[in-house]
Amino acid sequence: MAGVTDRAGAAFSRPMFESLVKRRFFFAESFEIYRLSPNFTGDNRGLFDYGPPGSALQANIVNEWRNHFIIEENMMELDCTAITPEAVLKTSGHVDKFADWMCKDPAKGEYLRADHLIESVLESRLAKHRNPGADGQKAKPSTLSDAVAAEYEEILAKIDNYDGPELGELINRHDIRNPDGNGEVLPPAPFNLMFKSTIGPSAAAPIYLRPETAQGQFLNFRKLLDYAQGSMAFASASIGKSYRNEISPRSGLLRVREFLMAEIEHFVDPKTSKKHDRFSEVSSIELPFLDRETQLSGKTTLKPLSIGEAVQTGLVDNETLGYFLGRIYLFLVKIGVDEKKLRFRQHLANEMAHYACDCWDAELLTSYGWIECVGCADRSAYDLTVHSKQTGTALVVKEPLPEPIEIEEWQATLSKKLVGPRFKKDTKKVETAVASLDQQALESLANELAEKGFISVSSEPLVDGSTTVELSKDIISITKLKRVERTREYTPNVIEPSFGIGRILYSLLEHVYWHRPQDTARGVLSLPALVAPTKVLIVPLSTHPSLQPAVKKLASRLRALRISSNVDASSSSIGKRYARNDELGTPLGITIDFDTVKDGSITLRERDSMAQVRSSEEDIVQAVRSIIDGSETWEAVAQRLPLFTGQSQGE
Amino acid sequence: MAGVTDRAGAAFSRPMFESLVKRRFFFAESFEIYRLSPNFTGDNRGLFDYGPPGSALQANIVNEWRNHFIIEENMMELDCTAITPEAVLKTSGHVDKFADWMCKDPAKGEYLRADHLIESVLESRLAKHRNPGADGQKAKPSTLSDAVAAEYEEILAKIDNYDGPELGELINRHDIRNPDGNGEVLPPAPFNLMFKSTIGPSAAAPIYLRPETAQGQFLNFRKLLDYAQGSMAFASASIGKSYRNEISPRSGLLRVREFLMAEIEHFVDPKTSKKHDRFSEVSSIELPFLDRETQLSGKTTLKPLSIGEAVQTGLVDNETLGYFLGRIYLFLVKIGVDEKKLRFRQHLANEMAHYACDCWDAELLTSYGWIECVGCADRSAYDLTVHSKQTGTALVVKEPLPEPIEIEEWQATLSKKLVGPRFKKDTKKVETAVASLDQQALESLANELAEKGFISVSSEPLVDGSTTVELSKDIISITKLKRVERTREYTPNVIEPSFGIGRILYSLLEHVYWHRPQDTARGVLSLPALVAPTKVLIVPLSTHPSLQPAVKKLASRLRALRISSNVDASSSSIGKRYARNDELGTPLGITIDFDTVKDGSITLRERDSMAQVRSSEEDIVQAVRSIIDGSETWEAVAQRLPLFTGQSQGE
Repeated sequence: MAGVTDRAGAAFSRPMFESLVKRRFFFAESFEIYRLSPNFTGDNRGLFDYGPPGSALQANIVNEWRNHFIIEENMMELDCTAITPEAVLKTSGHVDKFADWMCKDPAKGEYLRADHLIESVLESRLAKHRNPGADGQKAKPSTLSDAVAAEYEEILAKIDNYDGPELGELINRHDIRNPDGNGEVLPPAPFNLMFKSTIGPSAAAPIYLRPETAQGQFLNFRKLLDYAQGSMAFASASIGKSYRNEISPRSGLLRVREFLMAEIEHFVDPKTSKKHDRFSEVSSIELPFLDRETQLSGKTTLKPLSIGEAVQTGLVDNETLGYFLGRIYLFLVKIGVDEKKLRFRQHLANEMAHYACDCWDAELLTSYGWIECVGCADRSAYDLTVHSKQTGTALVVKEPLPEPIEIEEWQATLSKKLVGPRFKKDTKKVETAVASLDQQALESLANELAEKGFISVSSEPLVDGSTTVELSKDIISITKLKRVERTREYTPNVIEPSFGIGRILYSLLEHVYWHRPQDTARGVLSLPALVAPTKVLIVPLSTHPSLQPAVKKLASRLRALRISSNVDASSSSIGKRYARNDELGTPLGITIDFDTVKDGSITLRERDSMAQVRSSEEDIVQAVRSIIDGSETWEAVAQRLPLFTGQSQGE
Repeated sequence: MAGVTDRAGAAFSRPMFESLVKRRFFFAESFEIYRLSPNFTGDNRGLFDYGPPGSALQANIVNEWRNHFIIEENMMELDCTAITPEAVLKTSGHVDKFADWMCKDPAKGEYLRADHLIESVLESRLAKHRNPGADGQKAKPSTLSDAVAAEYEEILAKIDNYDGPELGELINRHDIRNPDGNGEVLPPAPFNLMFKSTIGPSAAAPIYLRPETAQGQFLNFRKLLDYAQGSMAFASASIGKSYRNEISPRSGLLRVREFLMAEIEHFVDPKTSKKHDRFSEVSSIELPFLDRETQLSGKTTLKPLSIGEAVQTGLVDNETLGYFLGRIYLFLVKIGVDEKKLRFRQHLANEMAHYACDCWDAELLTSYGWIECVGCADRSAYDLTVHSKQTGTALVVKEPLPEPIEIEEWQATLSKKLVGPRFKKDTKKVETAVASLDQQALESLANELAEKGFISVSSEPLVDGSTTVELSKDIISITKLKRVERTREYTPNVIEPSFGIGRILYSLLEHVYWHRPQDTARGVLSLPALVAPTKVLIVPLSTHPSLQPAVKKLASRLRALRISSNVDASSSSIGKRYARNDELGTPLGITIDFDTVKDGSITLRERDSMAQVRSSEEDIVQAVRSIIDGSETWEAVAQRLPLFTGQSQGE
């Protein structure tokens, strides 16, 4: 994507940015020394390690996430396993449906993700069409007509909306081939994205690594409801690694096979989800929306609207969903995301996960284009319903009705005396089969039973392998009963805000990266103090031993305050040492010089403005604390403490 | 294990303890509703989910670990992937050696871990011998002679020291059978404990889930050394999930298949590891040691010794290892471990992991016996050496020598002009093969080359499948050369403290669990404020609306201070509400009553003593802060603020 600019208005240079984050070990490809060795035949693509500043930044983002969501809203945190028995993901639909479409290039033996193949080929044809000489070769006139170019644009705008056969048709119609070797590809086939293994010594029990943290939260629903003392609405939250076996990972941290997620499952009474207690706190926030209709018309024009208006006009379905969109926005901006590079995009119908009935993504603009960083899906009652049905466990909320109501319904009763002896080991399955019959089925079976004297009911496979059970009049009765209901029972709906921490971290790093006009070789990361890996750099003016005691004292004082600091006592110039730490995003710097030894005064430097103030250690430490805990801005500190412009501190 | 007592001196009741931790959702088995459903054929053993208080406790332990080790010692944190290509774990030895011995019972189709089978059978025979009527059946005279009983005791004391064939011999000699059905078992066979899968769409690239976080740290060694600006010693640290496919998990959280680890890799110059800069800070701490010799003599007597003496007498090999044992001790005691239930046990020779040359475990006493919770291993230069050799990447430290030294050594030179054209695609492998020859090999090959005019060198498989290369005089020369060396090059040794967070958390919960003499039905968890899931319980005396504003104001004030609190505004009695939170380990409670509305005063209650003080909100919040940050004890607060004994606050 051309045209992304940094905060200083200069063109964003991805090579320079990447050089910084790799050189300073924010992150790096995993197993690099193996990948570079001659005999390696494995695959390390889509796997990344975070180095010291990356780990600290990630820990700080997660910590703030915990504060902003879990603590602030009293959510119930869970830590569930990534290893998941196959049965669970079979029920949830992931075994059958969690797949991408892939094309094999038989000539190269390569596998390509179908939608990415189409995107890259059409984008490169369009690029040539717009700017024929750009690839450095002799300019050839574009072979695309304007009409075809417009068609390509439209395909790209709704690329997420095509299913496998449709992608195959596009590949045929537009003669799309593997850019690597120009080979024709086979028709798209589904590829399940979960990593599979087996558990236990017999190797008979298949498991998958979870593709999301959500399932563990759904399965613990009853325990959570207990913990909440039965009162709705409530939310659980999990922070943990998930795994997706991407077909051909690319774009660095943006498409990886192992990643940290933070997910919230907000369980709500479907009757009251239209309202949210704290909606008024966010309703006036204006968000840049990109709705479904705009996308289907092949456009990407944003519609800025307050959350209140968005819910009122039905663009956003309900207050609960609107509330979370607002909270997501506040979180992202707080950790340093550039709000001019943020939009909320509604999913297209075919793009949604199999469990979702509506979904809005928070997308961040990067040099790779707009990237989905947070998904906010309405999963309705899908997951609780399917797990409940599969396990025979009621995953429902019961609450007293204001007035008791009389209900008339069909009920099947099995003869306790006969059912055990007759069905032996199958008894439980027969009971489950009968219990799962709905009102409509019971009504017609009641007639059948009266007519024929027996009925057939389908069941899980029995000992003899059959999947139907014959039940005669002596063992089953089906009658219409009246009963008074005093409690209401319902399956909650679930709103799920789901955060990809690695994508947020990467996009944030792009957003805060820039370089000073006078020093294009070195970048600056303007990370907010809240999430910066190290808060304070301590630099002694020289390596003279007389400065050491003051350095040690200050470092230990900051450590006691749990403010992370770093001492650079190397012999490089002060300016160079500060520049090195600007690259790490360290927001504050303290210089210890010979005057410190005399009068105890020290200087405090702010990263972005490079301005400095000088005062007593007491004053400076106090200022550092208040800047870091957010109670004071640098501007306020610079107003009240004396500015310092001593030459020794210059860049 | 009989005889474990709680902190009040009463016998520890595991059923009551387990009932508390499950009821209050500290943790629970994963996928329980599936395991309980009739059709489930999967395996969820050894998988556990942490509920809200367990997740918070775990997060607090991890946070303190980060402070105590990473921040305090300026370690470099890394976050590496769990997915690991096979090649890496092949090199590290895990593919071939990371296995337990397992016996199949063909009658039952069950798999049993061989050492656990022997332990449980011998222990139950010994129990009958000691106390013949204990199993509730009619007392039969024990059939064991005292000599056999003594032999059993000795086997049990060194059970970790037997290899597979030895375990097989013990099973035969003592006729050990599967307690479930009394079937004979097949001889022990090794079972690799790693979960295996494949990555990418072709399914051609095998991967494992990491069994430890260490490998990622070793593979990043060069980047870490760069980040440390080349200066030794330094340490990296990782906190993350690891995976072991245990044969038959038991003992709840103590033997699981997915677990959180915190591991430090301390890289040190082998020449200077005998010394550690900060050793004096821990040298006077006395630790309870259980050394190798004592165990081999069949005993478990502890040897209390200061760390200084332990290093001086050679019991602990060096200061670096001793320093970490001291730091581990301080950490465990700080988070609330009972120091009377803590020992440091040296590994037996056969028990050590394949990479270790010495290892001490911090073990905690629980109702399951002594449990390894922290391992502190000396991995020497094992891992860096094998990865370096396998990948051809130098994983070494280079440092300037004080004086240059002259070195005479054999050197092989390949003719650049000839080697490429002759070996084509094999060139890189031939170069690697020659480069890996050591001095001894070069000396004898030099003679051979002079005699025969050609030599054979073994190599990785070449294009034609052969594993030797013939090199003639024209293409290779081997000569003795003098050179002056100005830098020293060495592979660091690694000391590895490795923490099993789940085992620590479980043992800690057992250590802090007790119940008040007057209320045996409800337990108390005396967790230190530092790690307690919630710090403050806020209880309005009644549900009267006039108390609500003070509750809200206090809750939001604590939230702003990032002190986690919980409001219990239910209609239960104050005493019951406090008792419920004693079960969660909440150390402090604040009551809002009708006097609060009048004069703003509130009461503060301490969990263990149940004593209360009363003062202004300002005073109480200040006291809460200082108790939580550790700057003041409850006893000091109770001295300076007025005690409160109002009846409405009683239990």
